[in-house]
Amino acid sequence: MSVLLRNVPTIRFQRHMSVVASVLRYSEFGDPAKVIQVQQETVADPSNGEVLIKTLGAPINPADINTIQGKYPVKPQFPAVGGNECVGEVVAIGGQVGGLKVGDRVVPFATGLGTWRSHALYKESNLMKVPNSIGTVEAATITVNPCTAYRMLKDFVSLKAGDTVIQNGANSACGQAVIQLCRAWGVDCVGIVRDRPEFSKLRDYLKDLGAAEILTEEELRTTKIFKDGLFKKPKLALNCVGGKNALEVSRHLDNQGIMVTYGGMSREPVTVPTASLIFKDLQFSGFWMTRWTKENAQNPKRAEMFSELFELIGKGVLKAPAHELIAFTDYKTAVTNALSIQGFVGKKYIFTF
Amino acid sequence: MSVLLRNVPTIRFQRHMSVVASVLRYSEFGDPAKVIQVQQETVADPSNGEVLIKTLGAPINPADINTIQGKYPVKPQFPAVGGNECVGEVVAIGGQVGGLKVGDRVVPFATGLGTWRSHALYKESNLMKVPNSIGTVEAATITVNPCTAYRMLKDFVSLKAGDTVIQNGANSACGQAVIQLCRAWGVDCVGIVRDRPEFSKLRDYLKDLGAAEILTEEELRTTKIFKDGLFKKPKLALNCVGGKNALEVSRHLDNQGIMVTYGGMSREPVTVPTASLIFKDLQFSGFWMTRWTKENAQNPKRAEMFSELFELIGKGVLKAPAHELIAFTDYKTAVTNALSIQGFVGKKYIFTF
Repeated sequence: MSVLLRNVPTIRFQRHMSVVASVLRYSEFGDPAKVIQVQQETVADPSNGEVLIKTLGAPINPADINTIQGKYPVKPQFPAVGGNECVGEVVAIGGQVGGLKVGDRVVPFATGLGTWRSHALYKESNLMKVPNSIGTVEAATITVNPCTAYRMLKDFVSLKAGDTVIQNGANSACGQAVIQLCRAWGVDCVGIVRDRPEFSKLRDYLKDLGAAEILTEEELRTTKIFKDGLFKKPKLALNCVGGKNALEVSRHLDNQGIMVTYGGMSREPVTVPTASLIFKDLQFSGFWMTRWTKENAQNPKRAEMFSELFELIGKGVLKAPAHELIAFTDYKTAVTNALSIQGFVGKKYIFTF
Repeated sequence: MSVLLRNVPTIRFQRHMSVVASVLRYSEFGDPAKVIQVQQETVADPSNGEVLIKTLGAPINPADINTIQGKYPVKPQFPAVGGNECVGEVVAIGGQVGGLKVGDRVVPFATGLGTWRSHALYKESNLMKVPNSIGTVEAATITVNPCTAYRMLKDFVSLKAGDTVIQNGANSACGQAVIQLCRAWGVDCVGIVRDRPEFSKLRDYLKDLGAAEILTEEELRTTKIFKDGLFKKPKLALNCVGGKNALEVSRHLDNQGIMVTYGGMSREPVTVPTASLIFKDLQFSGFWMTRWTKENAQNPKRAEMFSELFELIGKGVLKAPAHELIAFTDYKTAVTNALSIQGFVGKKYIFTF
């Protein structure tokens, strides 16, 4: 089917086309390699306010895998289509569509839409046009990690140039976005990663991205970079690990500092000493991009965020994470390895159709 | 000395009096019964802007004991005088004192002043006049627990009548103030206490004070009062225990709920599940009255708070905690038993001079 579709010119056709889409669908929770099936289905012509897109790239994020496993708190209605972000090209528009035209590249920013499909119908109001300066991979991966990084850096403390942010999981896709945004804003980002054979290579890579310092979890325990005044004490800590490492990270926070948790890779809870709450006035909060998106559909801060992210991507200041394009027909390989493929930084699979 | 002073009329004398004060002083950290000494010292006449008070009552709070033991994060300069709150009667005023006169009853609201002394000189700006409707014990104990309860209920979430607050250590002096303030404001206060032989008596006592419900830690684990809609899910949890109980309490919080920690009686940290931070958007903060007082010397919210607390005390809606008056000469008994004297609710020693 996808072969057929690749041969269809994508720019010219308007309504009354018969488009057959390939869809990665599942009807029960379980091992994604087993429960996902490739299905073909005819996509209706776009109605008023609707836009038909052809998917150019759709990443596999950890939360997508967890959702299919049934381990994620958001439970889809069956049958469900995997995936939560993509970039597509407009191939047809319905009536009363004013802001988009055939050939535009767009990203959907509602979540739970099911993006692992070759074609999809979206409401125009759920799509955002992507400037030509933005590459396919950058656009396909903008709504989860760069947005998460952006909001966590903007919404909890007021950061100014010269302030310090500390984060663990600094090599994650989100961690890399945090590092690059900090550099763009003049904020010192100190990143923590697990020790590994290629640590020095990873450290150099992340420092090249813009990290002020990269430490192993071990090094963090004894570091004097804050005591010695090499960096200001962090106002903000970003935590996607939990457990002992989150505790160690929180010890370095300045008075009134905030730790924002957005993941828990160690599967251990965050431990908070009573004294740090009472006498250091630390605050522990969480962040979930899905909720932010849902609650801020009409918030001008959303457009402001994308505009700034597009500008930074356009300038080459914010780069896509390490990735590998993979045909959707190879979905078994992709979903099986998605949580484990590693270079010295993590690598993200991106479906092509 | 105190006998001598008791025979001096307290209302008439102005400046140029020779007053000898009894002071409970310590010059090293350690067991309070061992390191505290009774000392006599002549108090100078009040200078411009100063007020001489005779102490009518000064409580022993747990933090006072911890400070003398050297276990509190605030370390006094030696030699130091114990105590952080009291009520006194003005016995002499210096020049340029405009708002107070001899015979007024006052409480100091700066912390770290050392209130365990029969007489003290304070700046007028550190004193607040107490209305005649307020009893000595209520006045002597207003600046720590009722103020802590008040601020925690006011400063973290916006509570309205019908909302629920959950707290552990509900029988503590602060817990009792929380219960009474909640009742005054129409807020349902669900209190948690440790199981004990006289639990039902304690429950009745706290319900009489105004608690909507009192549960043991065991009962909390299986209660359905929130699931069944008997009470709204709490927006605010107040924690002075930590450990497993704090975790159990946090599980009942509504989405976006906040747990405020102001003590850690279990000596265990607060454990925060990653999912409750990310998906329930819970927040974990701390509160320390000492810091609030220091940072809000000029804040009109302070006068507003005392005015409201005085009004509630005057109406009999906010009562002093269970207490026992004890002569300062019996300080060894008082400081030794301060952390352990118990009726079925805790009891507070208050020094008289």
